[in-house]
Amino acid sequence: MNPLRVTIWNEFVHEQENREVARIYPQGLHGALAAALRPFPEFTVRTATLREPEHGLTDEVLNQTDVLTWWGHAAHERVRDDVVARVHQRVIDGMGLVVLHSGHESKIFKRLMGTSCHLCWREAGERERVWVVNPGHPIAQGLGHCIELENSEMYGEPFGIPTPEEQVFVSWFEGGEVFRGGNCWTRGCGRIFYFSPGHEAYPIYHHPDIQRVIANGVRWARPQGRPADVPRHVPVEQAPEKITARGPSVHDAAGRLASAKS
Amino acid sequence: MNPLRVTIWNEFVHEQENREVARIYPQGLHGALAAALRPFPEFTVRTATLREPEHGLTDEVLNQTDVLTWWGHAAHERVRDDVVARVHQRVIDGMGLVVLHSGHESKIFKRLMGTSCHLCWREAGERERVWVVNPGHPIAQGLGHCIELENSEMYGEPFGIPTPEEQVFVSWFEGGEVFRGGNCWTRGCGRIFYFSPGHEAYPIYHHPDIQRVIANGVRWARPQGRPADVPRHVPVEQAPEKITARGPSVHDAAGRLASAKS
Amino acid sequence: MNPLRVTIWNEFVHEQENREVARIYPQGLHGALAAALRPFPEFTVRTATLREPEHGLTDEVLNQTDVLTWWGHAAHERVRDDVVARVHQRVIDGMGLVVLHSGHESKIFKRLMGTSCHLCWREAGERERVWVVNPGHPIAQGLGHCIELENSEMYGEPFGIPTPEEQVFVSWFEGGEVFRGGNCWTRGCGRIFYFSPGHEAYPIYHHPDIQRVIANGVRWARPQGRPADVPRHVPVEQAPEKITARGPSVHDAAGRLASAKS
Amino acid sequence: MNPLRVTIWNEFVHEQENREVARIYPQGLHGALAAALRPFPEFTVRTATLREPEHGLTDEVLNQTDVLTWWGHAAHERVRDDVVARVHQRVIDGMGLVVLHSGHESKIFKRLMGTSCHLCWREAGERERVWVVNPGHPIAQGLGHCIELENSEMYGEPFGIPTPEEQVFVSWFEGGEVFRGGNCWTRGCGRIFYFSPGHEAYPIYHHPDIQRVIANGVRWARPQGRPADVPRHVPVEQAPEKITARGPSVHDAAGRLASAKS
Repeated sequence: MNPLRVTIWNEFVHEQENREVARIYPQGLHGALAAALRPFPEFTVRTATLREPEHGLTDEVLNQTDVLTWWGHAAHERVRDDVVARVHQRVIDGMGLVVLHSGHESKIFKRLMGTSCHLCWREAGERERVWVVNPGHPIAQGLGHCIELENSEMYGEPFGIPTPEEQVFVSWFEGGEVFRGGNCWTRGCGRIFYFSPGHEAYPIYHHPDIQRVIANGVRWARPQGRPADVPRHVPVEQAPEKITARGPSVHDAAGRLASAKS
Repeated sequence: MNPLRVTIWNEFVHEQENREVARIYPQGLHGALAAALRPFPEFTVRTATLREPEHGLTDEVLNQTDVLTWWGHAAHERVRDDVVARVHQRVIDGMGLVVLHSGHESKIFKRLMGTSCHLCWREAGERERVWVVNPGHPIAQGLGHCIELENSEMYGEPFGIPTPEEQVFVSWFEGGEVFRGGNCWTRGCGRIFYFSPGHEAYPIYHHPDIQRVIANGVRWARPQGRPADVPRHVPVEQAPEKITARGPSVHDAAGRLASAKS
Repeated sequence: MNPLRVTIWNEFVHEQENREVARIYPQGLHGALAAALRPFPEFTVRTATLREPEHGLTDEVLNQTDVLTWWGHAAHERVRDDVVARVHQRVIDGMGLVVLHSGHESKIFKRLMGTSCHLCWREAGERERVWVVNPGHPIAQGLGHCIELENSEMYGEPFGIPTPEEQVFVSWFEGGEVFRGGNCWTRGCGRIFYFSPGHEAYPIYHHPDIQRVIANGVRWARPQGRPADVPRHVPVEQAPEKITARGPSVHDAAGRLASAKS
Repeated sequence: MNPLRVTIWNEFVHEQENREVARIYPQGLHGALAAALRPFPEFTVRTATLREPEHGLTDEVLNQTDVLTWWGHAAHERVRDDVVARVHQRVIDGMGLVVLHSGHESKIFKRLMGTSCHLCWREAGERERVWVVNPGHPIAQGLGHCIELENSEMYGEPFGIPTPEEQVFVSWFEGGEVFRGGNCWTRGCGRIFYFSPGHEAYPIYHHPDIQRVIANGVRWARPQGRPADVPRHVPVEQAPEKITARGPSVHDAAGRLASAKS
């Protein structure tokens, strides 16, 4: 099997503006995530960040990306619409996408989900317990019953997402809330995994089980098939069954709209 | 039960530019659809079209709309983005949406689905048979095994949609293709029904069973509940369980991002 | 609209064997549930219990039942298989089913789900908070953000169910677990709602919001359509398109398997 | 990666009773399917049939089976219930299951689905076109837009299944019907793929693309994770959060129902 080419995207803002975050993630959140994935020989890992030209997500980079991970929070609105459109098209064509934590409000996630993607939250350093609700799912492999995070940001319901196609994790919070924090969808040929833990003010991405989930998620999201060759006009003479065109028409033989005022 | 307030939206372009279409739908496609729904005392029906100010979809109109139906084809790109955003928010907040035929490529449908919404097509006036695959679904009530349309436009797979949450109809075409032409989704609090028959060059919306499906679809899509009150910050002192804030923070007590360079 | 005919089924064992349960539910759990639904003029309510002939679920009773609710715990194995088969067929044909609490291990629920339906549990009188994850769903109407139960039995993940088609509630437990406790499925023409709160040793069914959820669930589960008329043989001469039979055959013209050793 | 251990089950009745079937499948349907999978080095293949002791599906065989394929038609009722229960448990624990053609009425498929699994049918040797509706799905890899079968048995809607979690194929029939003939579900930790082509009176399993789908389906259905360790009682002292038992109880400390008449 060829190596899985992973691009780790991070807006890389908090780490440059907040000393506490910089202390926890001296190489940036992207650096920590890359360091977590690099030991696996099956992955080749690169990173990209907001301030690079085209946010580091040029056609050339995406041509060499099987799975993209996305972390953003403070600068969602600064991500260019044309880059979002490009990433969206890649997902539809089969690239996997792993959306992390506050990436739930990113343009790309909202565009793929079609919903608000809003939620409740509280930053109190409280305990979170990420429960495996589907131990048979590949993303849950190697874990125990739950992952316990001593300090976490609370994300709570209602979470404005379409019904997950597969639910892998549901979180419990010390302050009394729950959250559907590990969810899978397919859009076009691309697989999308959202995973909620990862607040920048706590060392969550240094936790081995969190790293394991992200590695599993990247594996799960690898491209599965070929993109659909649509839109596609099927001329009458290429219909699988022999038919003859009948009745009025607003298109010409090539499927273009006929000129107006006919 | 209060009457269900239905707004029928039509781009209303073909009827003004193509004599054949104007002959079949002298009051416009919206006029034909309105005439089909008006006999039901449970509905109050209005129409709106592209060339009206704000495409006829002002806040005032949407405030009085429980379910919106959408037909567009030639002018998808002329629909204003701010109106699309407004309609999108209404759906998320509970307004039903019935998307008809070539509305599969409308901005609002693509925004709610998050996918390409592309398909294959052929305009040959061929026979279509719309099969009920789920006779227990409310949208299929009053129908036989299938609806036969002597002249129809072929829409074929692969149809670039998320997996339907409920599948009501699948179409057979004389030329040899199939199509998932009657599909249900929920996005936020709003219900969405896509129904493929309805090519403007044939009198499909005059067919009693097609009218029945659209009436059933409108009923099914009626608002079900209340919108989610998110995003919402839950201050520590309002946590359901008593907790004390711990650890570093990037937000202030009101949930705003703390100023930079802390 | 015709009244919705509800039959409340209860195994009615604990109430006769345990003083504490009898004290909380002097009319039985079925009596408490019936008392909760009777004030709604839209319902007509009857009850049925294990020790009645055919467990009170005769053809005559089921003929007059639109929605059946099911509570069982200690005596799942004493429910007759033929009665289970009868109830199963009714659900497939459109009768709604609301499965309560320990009914997750009932024969009828396991038969409809096809999975283990197992879970984790602990009876410690701990606090449960039932969160609304889908405020737009009809079953959540009239509730706040969550229902708080001061004493409840813990049900925890992994819950061995098929992915819910709609998720309405997820529970938080004081002892640290979570549970997908309010889930919807459709099987055949019948709608199924599972709702986890309802341990017999606590007065949970006297809680107004729990009663509200059950009333909403019964309304949601009302029959929606007509049963499918399958299995059905379609003779060649009744094919929608004219075709001629070709090739070898293992059936005769009526669709019966041809006699052996041909 | 370890080889994938495939067991091909066939009732093996028609081949012994009908000369035409025996001519097409001289080694039995299981022989043809085994011959199709054996060339792939990633599979190790064995077969099992109805008349073998325990239908060839002993614990020993199932212990060495990653994916089971199932073909049955004339003898569904002769499959022992205890063997069905054993296979069912294996699927819940992670074994993949590929159900072929008339296996839709098998005990194991109906048990996993929970529905009628009924359909319409006609044996007229008519043309079937199996359309790929999801080209991004792993089961569709290596195929064109559709598979054309010159002679096939018609299977038609409504098909009494739960909504497929993933839809891969939909079939078109010359006689005018459609059928959802390639569907995926997960039950417990096990993946299930149903694929409709495969009537015994036509050489369908000799078609390279049909063989390809079955090979892809077997790969897709390979075990993904670990079985859930439920049912499981969590004693109070093992609760993740420290709690104290409160209130009345109907269980003893080990989670057993307390003796009656307390």
